[in-house]
This record gives sequence, C-alpha cells and structure tokens, in this order.
Amino acid sequence: MRPNTLGVIGLGAIGGSLARQAKLAGVAKVVGWSPEPSERVAAVQQGALDDAPPKAADVARAADLLILAAPPAANLVQLEALAPHLRPGALVSDVGSIKRAIVALAERLGLGATFAGSHPLAGTHRRGFEASRSDMFLGAVAYVTPCAGGEDAAREIGHFWETVMAAHVVTIDAASHDAQLAATSHVPQVVASLLALYLARATPPGAALGPGALDTTRLAASDAGLWSEILLMNRDQVLPALRALQEPLGAVERALEAGDGPALTGWLTRAAQWRRRVEPEP
Amino acid sequence: MRPNTLGVIGLGAIGGSLARQAKLAGVAKVVGWSPEPSERVAAVQQGALDDAPPKAADVARAADLLILAAPPAANLVQLEALAPHLRPGALVSDVGSIKRAIVALAERLGLGATFAGSHPLAGTHRRGFEASRSDMFLGAVAYVTPCAGGEDAAREIGHFWETVMAAHVVTIDAASHDAQLAATSHVPQVVASLLALYLARATPPGAALGPGALDTTRLAASDAGLWSEILLMNRDQVLPALRALQEPLGAVERALEAGDGPALTGWLTRAAQWRRRVEPEP
Repeated sequence: MRPNTLGVIGLGAIGGSLARQAKLAGVAKVVGWSPEPSERVAAVQQGALDDAPPKAADVARAADLLILAAPPAANLVQLEALAPHLRPGALVSDVGSIKRAIVALAERLGLGATFAGSHPLAGTHRRGFEASRSDMFLGAVAYVTPCAGGEDAAREIGHFWETVMAAHVVTIDAASHDAQLAATSHVPQVVASLLALYLARATPPGAALGPGALDTTRLAASDAGLWSEILLMNRDQVLPALRALQEPLGAVERALEAGDGPALTGWLTRAAQWRRRVEPEP
Repeated sequence: MRPNTLGVIGLGAIGGSLARQAKLAGVAKVVGWSPEPSERVAAVQQGALDDAPPKAADVARAADLLILAAPPAANLVQLEALAPHLRPGALVSDVGSIKRAIVALAERLGLGATFAGSHPLAGTHRRGFEASRSDMFLGAVAYVTPCAGGEDAAREIGHFWETVMAAHVVTIDAASHDAQLAATSHVPQVVASLLALYLARATPPGAALGPGALDTTRLAASDAGLWSEILLMNRDQVLPALRALQEPLGAVERALEAGDGPALTGWLTRAAQWRRRVEPEP
C-alpha cells in the first residue's frame, strides 16, 4: 500500500527518517508525534511532517498507515493506548529491533489482521530527530513479521517498505527474527560495549586509538537505555549467544599460552574468510 | 632528518605507502625491495620508487635511512641480514606493531646508536602494494621507540616522521609501547575476529548484517599470518588483557539473567560515555 496519510509515533533518528523519506517519495500527508515538543516543531519546520498535533491519538485518528517508531517498550504502551483511536481498516506497524512482544500484543488486542511488525536494518548510533536522514532506508533490508492470520496486512506493509522506502523486504516470523537478530545485532552491540569498557579501564587518558579500535567500538556509543530494553526483551536469545562467545575466546587464549602459531593463524584465517565473504573488497 | 636516499624493505600497504608519500614529499631518491618481483615492478611503474633492485642488500647499501616494512618476524631476519651492508652512519627503523624484540635485536647487533623502532598508527585491513596510498601517514600518530643510548637516532627518525610523513610523533620506550598496544590494538583485533567466528557459526548463510555488525567485525578481515605473529610476539601482554575481558562479560550476563535493567543501562552508559569521548560526534 501507499498511504494517503502516514502517521509516525516517535520522531527520533528512525521515525524522523521515515517521515522525511515518505515526503520525498510523494506521500500526500505525513503526520507525526513525539513527546518532545522541540522535535515536533523541528520536523514540521524542516518539511518532514505536514502536521504534528500535540496528542498521539490525533495522529492515530488521521493515519491510514500508522508506524510506531518509539523505543520497543514505549511502542508496546503506544499500541495499547492508540488501538481505540485507529481509523477503521488502518494498517499498523512498528520499527523495533525485537518482534515477539509487539506481535503478541497486537494479536491480543485483536489487531492481528491489520498489524505486522517491521524492523528496518538501518540506523545510526546517533540519537534524536537531528540524526534523521531522507535516505535512511534506501536499499536497506526491512524485516516484516506477520501476526497469526495477518498475511494480507504483512503483504501490504511489505509493499509500503518496498515502494515508499525503497527497502528490500524479508518476511519472517517474529521468533525467527528475534533469534537471528540476537546473533547479527544484539551480540555485536554487547561485544562493542564490552571492548569499550575494557579500553576505558586499560588505556591511559589520551592514548592514541587507531581506526581499528574505533571501528570495533563504534556501536558502543549507541543509546544505552534503548539497548538495555532490547537486550532485556530478547534475553532468552542473547544469553546463550553470549555464553557461546566464551568457548572460542578460550581457544585463542590456549593457542597463545601454548605459542601455537598454526592454531592461531587457523583461527584468524577462519574469521578473515567469513568477514571477507560478507563484505568483499571494493 | 630528511634522507637523500630512503630505502624501504617490504612493499605492502605500509612499505608502499612510505615510498609513495616520500616521493610526494620530495625525497630525492626512494629505493625499495620486496620478495615479490611483481610488487617491485608495480612500485617503480607507479612512481613510488626510483629503483627496485633484485637484492635487499643493494637497497641497504644505497640508503641513508633504511626502513624495514616487512611483517615483524621478517623484519628481525632482515635487520640481522642487512646490518653488514648498511652505509656508515645510516639510520635504520622499522614499522612493526611490536617493538621490544626489534629494539633488543638492534642493541645486540651494535646498532643502538643508529636504530630506533617506529610504529605508525595507520594501516588498512587490505594487503599488498595495491592497498598502499600516498596519504597513509598524514596526521597519524607515529610511535618512536629508542634503543638504550639511542636518543639522537630516535630524534632524527622522529623528525623524519614529522617532516616527511606529516605524522604526530610520540616517543615511548618499547616495553610501554607493547603494553599499551596490547590494549588499544591487539585486543580489538582478537575481539573482532572472535565476533566474526561466532557470527560465521550462528548466522544462516545470506542473513542480513547491519552496519553495526560490519563495523564491529571489520578488523577480522586483516592478514591472519601477520596478526598471528603480532599476537604471539606480544603474548605476555595480550593474554592477561584477554582474561580481563571475561569479568565484564560475566557482569553483563549476570545483569541479563537477573533482568536487572538499571545495572545493564549503567554498564552500557559507561561504555557509551567512553566511546563518545574518544571520538566526539561531528
């Protein structure tokens, strides 16, 4: 579907980018809400929104596609609060990094035929509307997770991501999504933060950091409150994944202790082969 | 010092960049050697070298500053092999990531007054002469590690990095260098490879990876043989550092098990504060 009126709840880096890109793609009316009045003002002034009413319910009443773009826990609260205000037949989605909880809530609220979860694999470690861009989702993967019996809504919402946001849609059930993202996104976040904390303790102030250390810790600058929510909401998947890191860490320590060059080179080579395959050299 | 003739042993990403940048900075003659004849030909054809004789000893005989830019273990072999062929009074340095072994070898060979180690904090995970650039060291930190009694040579070689390579020189003893780099460079390399290996096992082929997972694993594509050498030569520093990662990893696991949001947010916040401080937002 191409909405006539797109509603966006939450105007941070993701919600703001949704609004910007929808306007650029010719969506007739984009309305949005943020708890921060300054973000509402900025979004209208910069042409990302046609209107930013002071109440989220007014956005829900206006939209034929409503997208929740607050942090995951706030999206759950908003979905429950806004459900009574939706237009008849309006489609609803969200953009959170974890999908089981919101899909289950939509089903419980009787929205299974009109809700599908979304998770665009795009973003930035920067925060707020000022980090939004009009090309955030261009060419990005967007996961779409249907409710039970919600295949039609998922197809419509996937079509929105493809035609309005120029994203590549991958339809996947919420449980598989959360298991996969534990590995591809949540564990990298923990690893980057872990390394940053180690470096904070181990390096003298002012010690030079090369591009490698900066790349490897870039994610650590992400929003701590948001990531705490994500990790806790997906902890049954994240915890075993973190435990699975300890075995290969032990293997490299043993190779170093033994001075075992071939084992160490083999370990580093397997890592390099995977990394070069997932992003070949230009 | 500004050399009249700069000699470079090893024409990979670092050695090739040394040659390119020296020519650009107006060094009259740059001669170099690589065990790969194709790299010698390419370096001359592309104007990075004035001459590339087939024997490394001929480079040593010609240079008033000789820089060893092979992998660390090969630099040790080259220093010993080339010492008899050096011009009287020629200064010698290297560009390896670890400094204790080569500084000790230079002292043992009686080169303490003419050798200082170097380590420019620049590079790429790509390999070979084709990855060399003429701006590799511009604005980079370059560590210079003197031999006992070699302060004059260290000052001259530091001056070369500043005036010819436009780098920022940090003079530091070899042991302090190796301890600091274990934290700022060698541990990030192991962490990136560890995460890459985990992802190689945990993600289905073709699973989408976001920019975060790609950034966090970028270093894993580095040269496995080179990094095996570096980690083994610095293992007395790297091993305790790797063990120090396990304590905060355990802390985040315990916070997840307990569902302790404030502890998790505090942990992520401390990481984010450090990361934002070392590279403030543009």
